[in-house]
Amino acid sequence: MTKYNPQQFNLTMMTDLYQLTMMQGYFYSDYQKEVVFDMFYRRLPFKGGYAIFAGLEPFLKALQGFSFTKEDLAYLKSLGIFRDEFLEYLSKFKFKGTIYSCAEGEVVFPNEPLIRVHANAVEAQLVETLLLNIVNFQTLIATKTSRIAEAAKGRAVLEFGLRRAQGINGALSASRASFIGGATASSNVMAGKLFDIPVKGTMAHSWVMLFESEKESFYRYADLYPEQTVLLVDTYDTLEQGMPAAIEVLKYLKDEKGIKDFGVRIDSGDLEYLANQSREMLDKAGLENAKIVVSNDLDEYIIEELVKKNAAIDSFGVGTNLVTAKGDAALTGVYKLVARKDVKRFTPCIKISNNPEKITNPHIKNVMRLYDENNLMVGDLIFLEEEKNKVLKAADEKEPLIFIHPRFSYSEKKMTSYVKTKVMLEKVMSKGKIICDFPSLTEIQKRSKANLSSLHPSYKRLLNPHIYKVSLTPKLSRLKIKMIKEHQ
Amino acid sequence: MTKYNPQQFNLTMMTDLYQLTMMQGYFYSDYQKEVVFDMFYRRLPFKGGYAIFAGLEPFLKALQGFSFTKEDLAYLKSLGIFRDEFLEYLSKFKFKGTIYSCAEGEVVFPNEPLIRVHANAVEAQLVETLLLNIVNFQTLIATKTSRIAEAAKGRAVLEFGLRRAQGINGALSASRASFIGGATASSNVMAGKLFDIPVKGTMAHSWVMLFESEKESFYRYADLYPEQTVLLVDTYDTLEQGMPAAIEVLKYLKDEKGIKDFGVRIDSGDLEYLANQSREMLDKAGLENAKIVVSNDLDEYIIEELVKKNAAIDSFGVGTNLVTAKGDAALTGVYKLVARKDVKRFTPCIKISNNPEKITNPHIKNVMRLYDENNLMVGDLIFLEEEKNKVLKAADEKEPLIFIHPRFSYSEKKMTSYVKTKVMLEKVMSKGKIICDFPSLTEIQKRSKANLSSLHPSYKRLLNPHIYKVSLTPKLSRLKIKMIKEHQ
Repeated sequence: MTKYNPQQFNLTMMTDLYQLTMMQGYFYSDYQKEVVFDMFYRRLPFKGGYAIFAGLEPFLKALQGFSFTKEDLAYLKSLGIFRDEFLEYLSKFKFKGTIYSCAEGEVVFPNEPLIRVHANAVEAQLVETLLLNIVNFQTLIATKTSRIAEAAKGRAVLEFGLRRAQGINGALSASRASFIGGATASSNVMAGKLFDIPVKGTMAHSWVMLFESEKESFYRYADLYPEQTVLLVDTYDTLEQGMPAAIEVLKYLKDEKGIKDFGVRIDSGDLEYLANQSREMLDKAGLENAKIVVSNDLDEYIIEELVKKNAAIDSFGVGTNLVTAKGDAALTGVYKLVARKDVKRFTPCIKISNNPEKITNPHIKNVMRLYDENNLMVGDLIFLEEEKNKVLKAADEKEPLIFIHPRFSYSEKKMTSYVKTKVMLEKVMSKGKIICDFPSLTEIQKRSKANLSSLHPSYKRLLNPHIYKVSLTPKLSRLKIKMIKEHQ
Repeated sequence: MTKYNPQQFNLTMMTDLYQLTMMQGYFYSDYQKEVVFDMFYRRLPFKGGYAIFAGLEPFLKALQGFSFTKEDLAYLKSLGIFRDEFLEYLSKFKFKGTIYSCAEGEVVFPNEPLIRVHANAVEAQLVETLLLNIVNFQTLIATKTSRIAEAAKGRAVLEFGLRRAQGINGALSASRASFIGGATASSNVMAGKLFDIPVKGTMAHSWVMLFESEKESFYRYADLYPEQTVLLVDTYDTLEQGMPAAIEVLKYLKDEKGIKDFGVRIDSGDLEYLANQSREMLDKAGLENAKIVVSNDLDEYIIEELVKKNAAIDSFGVGTNLVTAKGDAALTGVYKLVARKDVKRFTPCIKISNNPEKITNPHIKNVMRLYDENNLMVGDLIFLEEEKNKVLKAADEKEPLIFIHPRFSYSEKKMTSYVKTKVMLEKVMSKGKIICDFPSLTEIQKRSKANLSSLHPSYKRLLNPHIYKVSLTPKLSRLKIKMIKEHQ
């Protein structure tokens, strides 16, 4: 549980206008109608093989705090489209719905429900925009960071993106999500304070330039921060000027002060060449302990290449490309109606499209994940909540589970090679109250690493990964086909 | 002046850790040293020909409110690297520097100073991260929107990006900046409330799906919002089901209620084909007034193509690609030391790099923009503040102004074909106090359109635009070359 309280900035009005006009519409049409929405994403980001789910805690906290202030209501009234009776309803608005969700740090795949919202139509509609804004972005960044951390193969990944992030909160959310995805630390002090993320930093070129000489600037820094000295060596000329000065100062730290933990940072030029040359110079000077940090427009592909070449690099500082999710600036997460209560029964709902990939999976669903004897994930099965007992019992007894392809319903596979299962969606909010515990970000990061270790490396390849199997139960598949036919 | 108050969320700690460690370093080294920093960007975003400057008001307001809370100081103390004396200094911290800036909505180019900060080194360092975060992102989005609005050639551009924006504030900043760049309205209710931006919206597929039939959902909406009816027609089948139902309901609005202002929205499929077919159906039904709004993954290139083909479209709803700035997720804005006061005189500073494009322009500078007899911009001249009177006098007397290329100093051009000039950087903050007026966003949008109309269309081409001339005075060029040589 972190100190982050999104209510420092009330987020209720952070919504699209049409949510409010639709809410008024439901209010006057059939306001008590209960509905169920699924949040899922359509396409894997970065042409990768998986995503890391993130953003649940900030979303639930914001939702629990939803309320319209007097100023909000005065503004809405000024728009001239909302009636007094509805504004009066809004003035007492509280979200009283029930929510099921995956856990943060979970490995998740396209088209399976990640969050399921049960509420009356008016309330459920208001959830959409904020849910998508928070979960889309945090899942995107956790996923991006996870790819970077995988490429770094155990070397530290420092998130340095605040200055290039998309807005202040974009930066703050990115720091949180990148820690979940495997970043070692962030440069963002506010993120450190709010989320208990380790904060790190070295020095900027301006530090070096403000002193008479590069060497003087290094000595000053070393005297002030003997235990945290990482010297930026590329202000004028890395190998000719920066490194010789740094070596003198690091030797002083080692010999005069007995310090062993220090390093240099290279922020421009050919990083492989400069790092290897610098490593040689440091080792010759007896500074084998000195670490080399590199930065400058890094991403998972460059890092993978540097690691493959065995470049003498200990840590990667990653900024812009991490916090703006280079390659895919947004996750394709959507929030779709899957059922509505007519009289006493839930009627499944489906969104049809000329594009078969955009046809939704109808009705109230959950997901079961199967693991093999090596604790590797073998596939996810989307099932109807109404068949949950049957599916759980079959899984308990290790009976074959039938996987139907979500689009090609003739493609059927009997899964027998599983030894363990897990149901993905758990109740996290009941009648508007949060009922789950929020683990610390460090715990979520650990969970995310553990989950990833259950994913076969072929799914984690940066390009052209293996496609993970997400299928439907026969009953769900039959329902879907029946509904599509009814609409034709 | 908008109602936006970034102090609802104190932004002082929204900084990189190294800014604070460097600040402590200056504090103990030579804390009174006055310095000057330039903010500029290095590369035109989106392979375009210009950028629209935005973000000044939120930046200045946040900076004027900078102060560390007790909790902030307790957190910093807990990091174990800050001394009590420095924390005591921070507890009373107020920014007392002076700032010069371009106006929001101004057309700006690479490597010319957009913002100049004069302050003692400790204070100036703290400005960097927040300045870059706010101005980089808002300038990027204002620029992106301007490209989209240019492509739309007068058709309305609606910003619908909240659900896919990079965090909550990313969305809010994007709504502000996209209005500056030329968006007609936003879907973001919070942005409407805080920034007086017009808000707009239609309906989602969930509205259509919640009713027994598409037609019923349309009638309900039309009865509730007769003056704002825009019907979403693609939930099941646009031309076979959605449009016939919409036509019946719009005719009802026209014939029974005398309404003339309404429309339909198409959110999937081939937009040109569907819009043209829908137009034909509407016209045949006597609904020539009905507007057609399209959305679904639009950007400036798709819009340019649709407009060229004369597709029957009245408005474009643009989401993800606008608010995440597809093509360039971050502006390459940087904050570089250009002068420091040693004893009584300012010494120019320069950042050298093996990459000539990364060598900075030294010293305290301003920019003069030249216009021809058609009020078209002909070039920008970066000059030293110490030669300002001379440059202004020469410009007043319409003497030839010598433009030296910023990198190829042998390339020299005498500018004679100008009839008007403008100095770009004006003082906006004096000793920590804001001294400029902030125009409304509507005024800034007007200014931005007026500025763009002074830019020849060849610079506004979406791809391969003409490169606008930004040059140095001979004196500044000589200083730069001298300093580069001294460092070699």
